[in-house]
Amino acid sequence: MEIVDRVLAGDRRALARVVTLIENGAPEARAILAALHLRGGHAHIVGFTGSPGAGKSTLVTQLVRELRRREQRVGVVAVDPSSPFTGGAILGDRIRMQELAGDPNVFIRSMASRGSLGGLAASTRDVVRALDAASYDTIVIETVGAGQAEVEIVRAAQSVVVVTVPGMGDDIQAIKAGILEIADIFVVNKADRPGADQTAAELRMLMSLDTHRAERQWKPPIIKTIAANGEGVPALADALANHQRFLAESGQLASRRGQQARSEILALLNQALLDRLRAAVAPAEWDQLVEEVIARRTDPYSAAAILARRVGLNVEG
Amino acid sequence: MEIVDRVLAGDRRALARVVTLIENGAPEARAILAALHLRGGHAHIVGFTGSPGAGKSTLVTQLVRELRRREQRVGVVAVDPSSPFTGGAILGDRIRMQELAGDPNVFIRSMASRGSLGGLAASTRDVVRALDAASYDTIVIETVGAGQAEVEIVRAAQSVVVVTVPGMGDDIQAIKAGILEIADIFVVNKADRPGADQTAAELRMLMSLDTHRAERQWKPPIIKTIAANGEGVPALADALANHQRFLAESGQLASRRGQQARSEILALLNQALLDRLRAAVAPAEWDQLVEEVIARRTDPYSAAAILARRVGLNVEG
Repeated sequence: MEIVDRVLAGDRRALARVVTLIENGAPEARAILAALHLRGGHAHIVGFTGSPGAGKSTLVTQLVRELRRREQRVGVVAVDPSSPFTGGAILGDRIRMQELAGDPNVFIRSMASRGSLGGLAASTRDVVRALDAASYDTIVIETVGAGQAEVEIVRAAQSVVVVTVPGMGDDIQAIKAGILEIADIFVVNKADRPGADQTAAELRMLMSLDTHRAERQWKPPIIKTIAANGEGVPALADALANHQRFLAESGQLASRRGQQARSEILALLNQALLDRLRAAVAPAEWDQLVEEVIARRTDPYSAAAILARRVGLNVEG
Repeated sequence: MEIVDRVLAGDRRALARVVTLIENGAPEARAILAALHLRGGHAHIVGFTGSPGAGKSTLVTQLVRELRRREQRVGVVAVDPSSPFTGGAILGDRIRMQELAGDPNVFIRSMASRGSLGGLAASTRDVVRALDAASYDTIVIETVGAGQAEVEIVRAAQSVVVVTVPGMGDDIQAIKAGILEIADIFVVNKADRPGADQTAAELRMLMSLDTHRAERQWKPPIIKTIAANGEGVPALADALANHQRFLAESGQLASRRGQQARSEILALLNQALLDRLRAAVAPAEWDQLVEEVIARRTDPYSAAAILARRVGLNVEG
């Protein structure tokens, strides 16, 4: 396909068009992405998550500058999984990032939730896939917050950076809830504020509680940065390079890719199930079944079994 | 089934056994739950969510006392969707709740994540179903935090209470991320602390931004409580009774139940897909397919299409 060749050749307009096709869920995107997938696998994919207000966007901007100094081509996918109602919070930060957009070796795209979280996670994976095929050296996935949705999204990364700030208080709780386990690198940003050392110590303490950490063979470094003036950003870039090397040499890159491929295939399979259901069961029939369940004339397990047979899933029991 | 009859008759030991079967994912639970479903539909199901440290557990304890004064039978399902690694934070609060456990008209059960979030959400729904059939008047689902996982879990409720505290700062951000839309009642707990009025004002402001609020016809009240001494708890119980009445009279109870039944059926269908996949595709074959994808000899879309055919989903395209 011509558009595939143009993306592979580094044509930014072709890339932007593919990203738009992905965002719109256009059916023709799939064949393009299948072809692009076969040509990818070279980029270092980095995810950034952490509380809103931790300065992630400024930090990513500075990291992009540092990686440009190291002559890398860099892609940034900024993802806001908040609902459309609360969406837009990320916009102010995005405007600031536009200063990088004049650089032909930097590609930035914001994505917001238009439907399900599953849909957004899938779109993010596909945009990263297109950037990877287009030979960006590092691709940053930046999320707006640090909830379950963000964790879901940064799972597509090879190296996950969790950004905190001094004096987190309750935020430590938020970090505990599932984020600690996925961190490969911790950043204490705004490290000129009081309490930076204490926050670093708290993170070290939390890490010591992680019973699975030893088997991972990697001890996440804790890096202090002041994104506003760039302090600590070269150290962050070094830590990312170290982690990339570790992943390759330990064999964990392959196992991470395997897990990611597995969960992507399962997500696609679930989407196929929903498509099949839409084709096989008329809305009126669906409504009728739901009505029976809420009127307590049948139960949800029996209703699901009926639908399973209708879509061709042969379930016993 | 004898155990069904005993649960319906109010036998607590039978109920506890059913809950344990649910937690263990025992196959015999399904037929019991199907029978119990047909006899439920009378309870008011209330969900509590909000930041860790907001005092949810104390507040729920006080609410249970207030509802007991109103001669209701009350069930509490306390859910911690954190990973096993971070689990246990809720335990201290649970111990405090034991003081209620001597009351034969109160049933309390804590549930922690043992596997997937989907699994925990399904188990929570099933425990609520059993309590409903056992004729508890109000069933409280209490979550430990306020992330995406918690939102997923409290979606099973008819009335959702979001608990905040004065001086939330970044917490307002957390509330914005998907929680505001699901709140039927706001509580500003620890209202004797400075800033309670300001927090209430911020919530009112956030609500005014919700463009879908008008069509819901319900304006969430903001209730100030001091859970430690019970202040404001009767007002919270009144607000819950008001919302229950509103749901019934507006027809929104039926539409909420319809949405909940629909999403439960879809979740059960996805589980059936996974069961079928496990039966139809050997682990070695799975591994081979994943290997082909990460070696870039095939793409994830083609791999998913192969599996879809294997499980009997006839997908074209």
